[in-house]
Amino acid sequence: MDARSLFGAARVAHLATADGQGTPHLVPVVFALHGDVAAIAVDHKPKRSTDLKRLRNIEANPRVSLLADHYDEDWTRLWWVRVDGHARILTGDDRAEPVSWLVAKYPQYASRPPAGPVIHIAITTWRGWAYRG
Amino acid sequence: MDARSLFGAARVAHLATADGQGTPHLVPVVFALHGDVAAIAVDHKPKRSTDLKRLRNIEANPRVSLLADHYDEDWTRLWWVRVDGHARILTGDDRAEPVSWLVAKYPQYASRPPAGPVIHIAITTWRGWAYRG
Repeated sequence: MDARSLFGAARVAHLATADGQGTPHLVPVVFALHGDVAAIAVDHKPKRSTDLKRLRNIEANPRVSLLADHYDEDWTRLWWVRVDGHARILTGDDRAEPVSWLVAKYPQYASRPPAGPVIHIAITTWRGWAYRG
Repeated sequence: MDARSLFGAARVAHLATADGQGTPHLVPVVFALHGDVAAIAVDHKPKRSTDLKRLRNIEANPRVSLLADHYDEDWTRLWWVRVDGHARILTGDDRAEPVSWLVAKYPQYASRPPAGPVIHIAITTWRGWAYRG
């Protein structure tokens, strides 16, 4: 499977952001890939859009990195795919389309679609690695 | 299990670094926890210690974040533990002890211990999260 397919099919990824001082921050996320856009939603509407560190960081510094990987005790089966890009936060009607991608991918969202802001990542770089002897 | 035990037992974690401009970078890593120190090794000795982006970033900016988490399609079983800290790169005799922690944790390293630099993270902050209804 190619890097894009592996990444798009991954059920979980890890989002790295950094604040204005360059301190990195890291959270596991569910996400949906659509072409060269990755979308992540905050489940609940925060009181302010700045309530979550990941959102504050993106407002201060839109550069983000998102990684999906497979761990196996057989290290010959390891792989990862990382995308780098620019993030922005959607809080209006423009949330609807990326939320629909997330609901399509995750049945867990079907009965309760995410209500919070959407992190929209415009992917600029793809990187992949798999073990090769 | 408490956050420290969950983290220490995790087989894989994700390391976020950022360069001098605050661009985040992210890789999956195997690691060993020893008190408030986390150790990660580069398997092969790079030609220069600056050959890997993660090492270049740490030289420019020692602030790092390391996260272990569990994904499950049953979202009530999700958890993560994140540590933030300051990293430095060990290339001399001071590698021996953290390499011994890694070899003790991972049988995969027994026949071929990692030969490259060790990333030594002095943990300053622990954060944990688990689903709660």
